[in-house]
Parts: sequence; C-alpha cells; structure tokens
Amino acid sequence: MCTVSELNPTARFLMGPGPSDVHPRVLKAMATPMIGHLDPQFIQIMDGLKDMLRRLFRTENDLTFAVSATGSAGMETCLVNLLEPDDEALVCVSGVFGNRMSDIVERCGAKLIRVDAPWGTPIDPGQVKQALETCSPKIVAIVHAETSTGVLQPLAEISKIVHKAGSLLLVDTVTSLGGTDVRVDDWGIDAVYSGTQKCISAPPGLSPVSFSPRAVQAMENRKTKPQSWYLDLSMVRNYWSGAKRAYHHTAPITMVYALYEALRLVFEEGLEARFARHQRTHELLRDGLEELGFEFIVAPEYRLPMLNAVKLPAGLDDVAARSRLLNEYNIEVGGGLGDFAGKVWRIGLMGCSCTENHVNMLLAALRKIMK
Amino acid sequence: MCTVSELNPTARFLMGPGPSDVHPRVLKAMATPMIGHLDPQFIQIMDGLKDMLRRLFRTENDLTFAVSATGSAGMETCLVNLLEPDDEALVCVSGVFGNRMSDIVERCGAKLIRVDAPWGTPIDPGQVKQALETCSPKIVAIVHAETSTGVLQPLAEISKIVHKAGSLLLVDTVTSLGGTDVRVDDWGIDAVYSGTQKCISAPPGLSPVSFSPRAVQAMENRKTKPQSWYLDLSMVRNYWSGAKRAYHHTAPITMVYALYEALRLVFEEGLEARFARHQRTHELLRDGLEELGFEFIVAPEYRLPMLNAVKLPAGLDDVAARSRLLNEYNIEVGGGLGDFAGKVWRIGLMGCSCTENHVNMLLAALRKIMK
Repeated sequence: MCTVSELNPTARFLMGPGPSDVHPRVLKAMATPMIGHLDPQFIQIMDGLKDMLRRLFRTENDLTFAVSATGSAGMETCLVNLLEPDDEALVCVSGVFGNRMSDIVERCGAKLIRVDAPWGTPIDPGQVKQALETCSPKIVAIVHAETSTGVLQPLAEISKIVHKAGSLLLVDTVTSLGGTDVRVDDWGIDAVYSGTQKCISAPPGLSPVSFSPRAVQAMENRKTKPQSWYLDLSMVRNYWSGAKRAYHHTAPITMVYALYEALRLVFEEGLEARFARHQRTHELLRDGLEELGFEFIVAPEYRLPMLNAVKLPAGLDDVAARSRLLNEYNIEVGGGLGDFAGKVWRIGLMGCSCTENHVNMLLAALRKIMK
Repeated sequence: MCTVSELNPTARFLMGPGPSDVHPRVLKAMATPMIGHLDPQFIQIMDGLKDMLRRLFRTENDLTFAVSATGSAGMETCLVNLLEPDDEALVCVSGVFGNRMSDIVERCGAKLIRVDAPWGTPIDPGQVKQALETCSPKIVAIVHAETSTGVLQPLAEISKIVHKAGSLLLVDTVTSLGGTDVRVDDWGIDAVYSGTQKCISAPPGLSPVSFSPRAVQAMENRKTKPQSWYLDLSMVRNYWSGAKRAYHHTAPITMVYALYEALRLVFEEGLEARFARHQRTHELLRDGLEELGFEFIVAPEYRLPMLNAVKLPAGLDDVAARSRLLNEYNIEVGGGLGDFAGKVWRIGLMGCSCTENHVNMLLAALRKIMK
C-alpha cells in the first residue's frame, strides 16, 4: 500500500532566479524510452549534445560536455580540476556566487586572493589589474551574470588583463547562457560552466562545461589527483569523448534528453533572435516595474535582461506580496539573498518564462496587490 | 535552424547492470509541471520522498534524502562528509566499487587500509576482525551488492565487529536497494548510499543517502570542511530538512518527481512481494542460463538476484553476441569489468526489467544466437 499522495502540484509561472518554465517538447522528450548509458544510440545523442553546446558557448573547445549534476557542481568541476593545493586563485566577488567560488577555492587548499566590488556593481578591470601586480594566480574566476544581484559583467577587458598575467580565466555563465551572448573563444575564456534551468529552460540537473586547450593542458600538468572522484575530468572526458567511451559513472540519461531537446529549441529560434527577445521583454518589464515604483539595483549598462533585481517600493511587504503572487496568481518571483533579503526582488525572464504574456500577467497582478 | 536530429532512439529491454526499464507512470511523472525548488509544494514533495526513502532503507534516520547527482556522487557524499585528512578508513574490496571507494578515501587525504577478497566472493568477517586488531579506523566501508561481480555481501556479523571496534559502518546499496532487503537500522549501518536506476527503476540522476545519528555526530565533530562544497551535508541537510529550508543548490526537480513516483510504485507492490519477485525471476533465469552452458561466478548462497554474473560458454564471442542481442533483439546485457572483461556477462533483473517476460525473451534470443 502506498500512503504517499499522488504528484499533483499546481502549475506555476516561474519568474524567479530559476528554474524557468519548461517547454512542452522538453517535457515530452523526457518520456523518450530509457536506453543504456553505453548504448551506441546514447553515444550519438551525447555527440549531438556536445555539438550544440559548442555552438551555444561559441567555442571550438574539444572538451565541451555536461557535468552530471546541477550548476554548482559545474562550478566545483572547473575549480577542482584546475587547482591544486598551494596554487593561487584570484576570485572576483560581488555577490553570492563569487563567494561560493571563494569557498570552493579554499576547500581545494589553494591560496585565495579576492577582488571585491559592492553588490549590484560589476568588477572594475583596473582592480583586477592592480591585484595581478602583486600575485600570479593560476586562475582568475569571475561571474558573468550574478544571479544574486542582476549584474552583467563585461569580460573582454578583464580577459586581456588575466591572460597578460599568464593566468587562466574561469567564468560562471549559469544565468547568462542562452539568454545573452556568451563568446568563449572570442573572449578567451579558459573554463566555463553553466546551468540548464535558466535561459536554456530545461529542468535543473546538468551543468554544461567547456575547457580551452590551455585549461586542458593545465589539468594534464597536475601533480595530484583532483579532490573529487565524481568530477575528475581526466576520467569524465573519456566517457564523453574519444574513440572508446570508458564507463565512469552512469549519466542521467533523461536529463540529457531534456537538455538535448531544449538546445534544439534554442537553435530553432536562433541565438540572435533569442537574445533580442530577452532584451525586448526585459525592457517591457522594466518600464512597467518603474511605473509601479520599483527601482533597479544595477546601472542600465550592466543590467542583466533575464534577472531583474529591483528594490521594493516603500510599503510593499516582501513575504506577503510574494505569497500573494504565488498563491493567488501562481506566479513565482525570487526574494533577495544576503544583504538584499527582504528589500529586493529578483524577477526572472529566462527562456520559456521570457514572454510578453509573462510580463503582462505579473504587472497586472502587482497592480492589483499594490492597490 | 536546428541541424541536430530529433531524439528518436529505438526502445530497448534493459537487462544490464543499470539503468533498468522505467515504468510508464514514472515517465509520465516527469512531465509534471516544473515548480520552484523552494515552492512550498516542492518542500512537501521532498518530505514525501524522505518518508518513502526511510521506509525503503528501513530506518528512522532523520538525515535521509537524495543527493542531487548519481550513485557515485552518493558514495563520494558519504566518504567526504565522514573523513578528514589523516583519519583512517578500512575499505573492503572485492570488485570495482570497493576499488572506487578506496580511490575516494585517498582523495580525502585519509589513510587507507584494505581488506581484499577475490572477485566473485564476499568479504570474510574474520578478515575484517583481524584487520581491526591492528588499526582503529573511523569508518569501515563495504559494498552490499557488488555490481561488478554479482556478490551479495552478508552484513550482520561484520556490523557487530565494526561497532565493537568503535568504527562507523558505511555501506554501498546501489544495486541492492529495492530488489532485496536492506535493513539500515537492524544491521547498524551508519552511512548508506544507493542509486535510482537499478531496482528502484527510476532514471539515473539521484542518489538516496541516509546517515545514522552516530554518523551525523561524527560529521558535526569535524575540524575541517569537507573537500566538496556541492556534497557538504552540513549545508545540504538544511535544504532537505529543518523548519527553514535554506537554499544551497537547485535540486533536479524532475528527477525528484521521477524518484517519488517510482517509490510509490515500490510501496504499491510491497517490499516483500518485490523482493520475492526478484528472487523468483532470478531462479527462472538461472535455470535457463545453466541449460545453455553459462556458469555462475558466485556460489549460490551469495548470489545477487538482480545482477547475474555468468561465465560465457566456450565458443560464445562476447562482443558479437551482445551486439546481436542489442541490434536484433533490442536487449541490453552488460559485459564484464576489469579481469572479467570478455569472459563474463552481467545480466540485470532490476525493478521493471525483472519479469518472466524479460527472462523468456532473453533466453529465446540466446538459444537462436547460440544455435
């Protein structure tokens, strides 16, 4: 006898920091018959997935694949495969995810150097340059799209500074990938990770990762094993590429199906059209929110289109208003993290959640709630 | 334009070492609308999942949940949360997965002591007892069901020896859970992990884990942070339990749906009925295989019902025969690992793949191929 009730959650409109709404074709793809993780048919699907990820990251990197866990495990994969004890790592911190990288750097036994910027602002390339005058880190790590603050970090100038110093550039694109341009090769990114549940609009469960030939070289020059067996790319890469696909762990087959179908949808729409849709929809939301008295945290030139961090107007109660949105309208928006808790909302317009209809629904509900 | 072809793999009958066939209700569950990972509805689903996992593990352990990655990450979770550098760990090795635990123990910086048994045989409790006379490890780790050899390891006697020595008992139940009895509390298991894609018949992607109060205590007494951020239970546990569910990472929502529905099916069938089905179906397969000249690796009293490791009859070519099974009959069976490669098959009867029809199909196909 089963006493646990049927799965029957009310459907939501997901306008928080992720997950985002999932396309019906992606839901359907997950009912594709289960096959073995070493079945030649699955190898072919992995190859198609790698091709699409390379196109999305705009890279030729051979080592491009999906880590068998969520975005934070992608972060850990990049760091534990590049850092050894006593290496130096410079981490740029202006939000939760820079802090998380710092934590992992220390768990690697590496020496952490931080460059900090106030939450809601990007990292200043000049500060990175200055920091690199007194240290020679193996990697410089930075977040492209800070999900905790809504900042889009320009990378081209910092990349030049990092490479001039002989360091590798490691970038978090969890929230940006699929919603705004990410140019791994043009920007000289050496290690990059992302998530599936933001602008790609697949369920959470995988983390797309790509390593440049330089990063692969650094990995091959290690003297010690990475501290994680599960994320050790010296083994994982033989499962995802090469002539003989060697068993490492069992890939989450169904998540691979979902990501595969979500990426097909991305390329059916086209990258430029998709980025334009995110920008256009963001502007629509911005106008409506400002009319209602919400204030953007981030200066216009550094604003993420897919993650709108806004200060609540005076008198609007954070928890009460988000509860009403969820319970009366089935709309989820995100609360603030850290110092922003209680004062800031994070409104996502990611992938399938990034439509004019979503904006209209949210604004109409807010008008009613705030009346 | 998308140039990558539609997902359209031929359906298989999965009779290898996992994944196993997935029930249509589980496939359907994955199309349940995506909701946020902090949505009160999702918290409720997590609670239901924890209840069912406790019943399946036969434990009262509060810290019982699913790691957001596959079974090998469950292994890593147990080890990295219990071991600190310079701790001692005794690992029992008689197959691939004991070796894997040894590798991870060394990555933890812990001192590894091994007790080895020949592949295809269980670990002798006397050997463990003897080893514990000259060391005092923090944990003793052992595999309940060795997927590489088909051995079912008796645990009751070893558990007494381990606890008498003051060590914690860590057990791999990836292949056993849901197909044969696993009694965490009765057998005094302190840390246990499993997978979803074996006898539970959900897709791969999560790893059920449970820690006894003693293991939780050991974790709380650590002086250093675990080397993995993603798997750090001091944070993960606040996401899975407690009054305030603190954000750590984004759970793979859809995989949670799948495991939830698969566990409902387990309890609708009933544990005893399910274990009996696995035993009965194994016996049917055994009789047919022996008639065809296959020889079991493992002595009858230590044989796993769900993972049948058999030596190929003389004259049967491993790769050619498995290819024919896959290509002509859409039946997947597993090859041998390590020393067993080329000589042994691993035939799975797990969860939804454990039916009389599966056995009949496989035996009929083999009779034709071997004619």
